[in-house]
Parts: sequence; structure tokens; C-alpha cells
Amino acid sequence: MNLDKYKVSKSINLKDFNTKEVIEDAEKKLKKLRKKLSKTQDTMYAEGKYSVLICLQGMDTSGKDSLIREVFKDVNARGVEVHSFKVPTELELKHDFMWRHYIALPAKGKIGVFNRTHYENVLVTRVHPEYIFGENIPTIKKIEDLNDAFFHDRMERINDFESHLVKNGTIVLKFFLNLSKDEQKNRLLRRLNIPEKNWKFSAGDLKERKLWDKYQFCYQDLLNRTSKENTPWFIIPADNKPSARFILAEILQKELNKYNFKAPELPNKVAEKIEEFKAELNNE
Amino acid sequence: MNLDKYKVSKSINLKDFNTKEVIEDAEKKLKKLRKKLSKTQDTMYAEGKYSVLICLQGMDTSGKDSLIREVFKDVNARGVEVHSFKVPTELELKHDFMWRHYIALPAKGKIGVFNRTHYENVLVTRVHPEYIFGENIPTIKKIEDLNDAFFHDRMERINDFESHLVKNGTIVLKFFLNLSKDEQKNRLLRRLNIPEKNWKFSAGDLKERKLWDKYQFCYQDLLNRTSKENTPWFIIPADNKPSARFILAEILQKELNKYNFKAPELPNKVAEKIEEFKAELNNE
Repeated sequence: MNLDKYKVSKSINLKDFNTKEVIEDAEKKLKKLRKKLSKTQDTMYAEGKYSVLICLQGMDTSGKDSLIREVFKDVNARGVEVHSFKVPTELELKHDFMWRHYIALPAKGKIGVFNRTHYENVLVTRVHPEYIFGENIPTIKKIEDLNDAFFHDRMERINDFESHLVKNGTIVLKFFLNLSKDEQKNRLLRRLNIPEKNWKFSAGDLKERKLWDKYQFCYQDLLNRTSKENTPWFIIPADNKPSARFILAEILQKELNKYNFKAPELPNKVAEKIEEFKAELNNE
Repeated sequence: MNLDKYKVSKSINLKDFNTKEVIEDAEKKLKKLRKKLSKTQDTMYAEGKYSVLICLQGMDTSGKDSLIREVFKDVNARGVEVHSFKVPTELELKHDFMWRHYIALPAKGKIGVFNRTHYENVLVTRVHPEYIFGENIPTIKKIEDLNDAFFHDRMERINDFESHLVKNGTIVLKFFLNLSKDEQKNRLLRRLNIPEKNWKFSAGDLKERKLWDKYQFCYQDLLNRTSKENTPWFIIPADNKPSARFILAEILQKELNKYNFKAPELPNKVAEKIEEFKAELNNE
């Protein structure tokens, strides 16, 4: 399976990317794949050198939650940490915009999944710049200060942050779940039509949907400016959920394979004594 | 299945409890059960009122890690947080002994699993009281201060802490994986005999094994003093791993069922407008 087409490695136009791709037997294939993923994480944990940060972005209803549920099903719960970032709290707003993401980073050996990420700081706040006033940034006085240059500068700060992480052993992989406007409509209607799904619906979803084009513009801009060789973005067609999950898992597994994780050997001091230890137990 | 026999509801003697119970088709049964557990957690998450704290204790090799992997396999990774507590760090030692556990508590809607728990503070430090000096407690001057009264007082503090959690919506369930000394020997030998398992072995394991009886005494004492109606301990026979996992999952599911979690209904204001919202989408 050629995965290069999903990777943002040159300037892209979001319109050139499919929102729908149907992969045969995607569920069956994912089932196999996630067993491999589980083993890979086990070895990574044993090795204790790397951590993995998975950044998930996508419009409302793009399937982030269920994707997390399905892709990481076989990974030891000990090895995965999911952080869903919502509207920042008062405490979080008293810190720089990266702070709450920083303290949630995965430890070595673990996979951290950010369900919505630090990229919301150049996305939802770019669509609604007035939100930024809540951050009390000394240099920001008026809405005109929140121009393209401001957000492009934030993206550079994000690039610096991620490059720092990579240099210190975090593998950073970023996925945009690319949903079509039509399929979002279907999914919102389903939330309204099926009583058990009602609770997931919020009137705000319709308001944000009206800003669809603005969001797409901001996504395209951030994808172009923050996809780097070592911290790449992948654009995943999201209209078909099982296929989206499989494609993401396949990319993840392939990227992790590059690192050849190895469980550590016993320290020499212990290895030399292994027969002694066995004898000690056997002669108890 | 009668689960009462696992619960510590009166003064117990650890010797009266089986370390081995073999349940037929335990793996198959667990597979079914964990699908239910996944649904229960989904509903609990939607309801957003309760959190669950699962405390796991057991001697080295009692199977805590693999139990976590198997029992929570079908629960959305978003809904489970596992915290493994090891030797306290310098920063942690600068706080009271509960601090690091407090900040790791699960948010509403989530299941938090403590792999080793705040009970280590009346366990490993009771077996090795000199460790407590690292905590710099003002009233503790000499080793004689670390007597039974000291540890019994800690247990009362733990009871207070847990009762506070329960009153505020946390469901607290505590499990002791009851392993036999013989089976620990088998498992340690396996770690030594199988090269891929070598990295899990530590010479310290043999040292702690020599203190087996002391640990059993401390376990029995804490089980008797900290198992309460709303924060019960369960003693799980741990010599057979698949059965141990199934028994724990069965108890967990049964306990959670008592709460009748319900996904919230739409707020009236939104519910009234549901047809309006549908029309808005359909007439776009």
C-alpha cells in the first residue's frame, strides 16, 4: 500500500485530496494490524527511549473518538494516554497557549494521543480571533493585531516546539481527518434522528458548520506551514470510517517500524549472574 | 457466579483465601464481558457524573500489567487512564505521600487504574520503614517512630481520603492479586529462562521475595483495616492469569451496574428545536 500520497510533503491544496476512499476488508485488516501495533508499543515501552505523540485534528463528527477506540484497542492501556483538549480553563488561560499541551506530553515508552491539539491555537482561534483576548497577551491590544502574521508566527513557535520534542526522543505524527461537508451533514442528522445519539449534538455544531470554508482555509494554511520531514502531517480521507482508521494505523505502524525498537538486554552485571539466580530459586 | 466470597467484608485471614481458581473458558467469557464493560464506560462518559478508581495491588509477577491489558482492551482508550506508581521522585517526596496519587485521579467519565497505589505507603514502606525518612515528616525522628500506630494512622488517612472521593462521585474498587509463593517462583524462573523476558527481571525481585511473609502480614492488616462498604477490597486468586482477569472484570462490571449510568437527555432548550435543526440542515 503506497502511503506517500497521504503525506503533506510539498505545498498542497486541500481540494486535491479525496475525502472518501474505501478499502476492502478495512476492519479485518485493522484487526490484524493493531496486534502488530500492540507488540511494537510493548517493545518501545521495554526499550524506554522513545515516546510517540499522535496529533488528531478534524472537523466535528470527523470520527476522532471512534478512531481512537478502534485503532488502539489492542495496545495495553498502560501504554496509551489520550488527552482531549476542549475550551481552555481559567487556569490554562493563565499560562501560555502551549502549557496545557506540554504537561500532557507522553512519557518515554508511551503513545500519547492528542484529540484536538495545540493546532487549535492556529485554527479555532484564527476563525474566532476574539477568543485570543482571553489569553491576555501583553502585545495584543486590538482585533487587528490578530492578523495572518500573528498566526504564522504561532505556527513557527509550534514548529520549534515539535522539533525540540523530536530531538529529545518523541516521534511526532499528525493526522488531519479530511471530512466532506456533505458527510458532516449526514452525521449531524444522524445525531438528531437517533435518540441515543442526541446527547452528542450541540447547537454550536451548526454555527461552526457555517464557517466551514474559513476552517478549510485555516487547515490548508497550517498543513502547508507545519508539515516537516520529521513532524509530518498526513491527510486521511475520513468519509468512510473503517477505511480512515485502517489508513491511519497503517501509516502509524510503518512510521514506527523505522525506529527498530528493541527490548533492552540485561545489564552485564545481572546477566553474568543469571545461573546463580536460577539456582537460588531452585534451591529455596 | 457468586462474587461475595472475593470481597473483604469482615476480618479475614489471608491464608483462608485461595491463590488458585480455574474458571472454564475464562478467556472467552472475558471477551464477552469486556464488550459490556466498554458500553458501560461509554454511558458513564456520556453521563459525566461518576469516575471510577481501580486500585491494583499484588506481589511482583502477580500479573497486574497483563491484567490491565486484557481487561480494558475494548474500552475506548479515551476512557481509561493507567498510572503506574514506582519509587517516588524527588519532587514527589517534597509533598505529602498522597499528593502524587491525588493529581493522578480520574476525571468524571473516566476509569483510572492505579497500578500499585497509595497503599504502597502502608506496605513497601512498612516492610522497609527507613524509606519514610525520605519524606522528611517533621514528627518522625527515629526508626522507632515508624511503629504500628504510625501505619495504622496512615490507613485511617487513606480511609478518609477514599470516603471523600466516594462522596464526590468516584467509585473506588480495590483488588489484591493473591499470588502463591510457589507460583511467583515459577514466574521469576520464566523471566530468567526466556531471553525475551530477561529485561523484566531485576535482582531486587529476589530480595523482596525473601520478605514474603512480612509483605503478607502487611497486606492482611491493610485489607482488614481499609476495606469498607463503599470502598471494598476484593481478593483475587492470581495463580491462574486468565481466571484472575475474568473474576476481576466480573466484579467490576457488577459493581458498575449498581449505578445505572444513563446518557444525558438533550437540554430542553435544544430538544424543542430538534426539528428546526433538522430542517436547517436539510434545506441548506
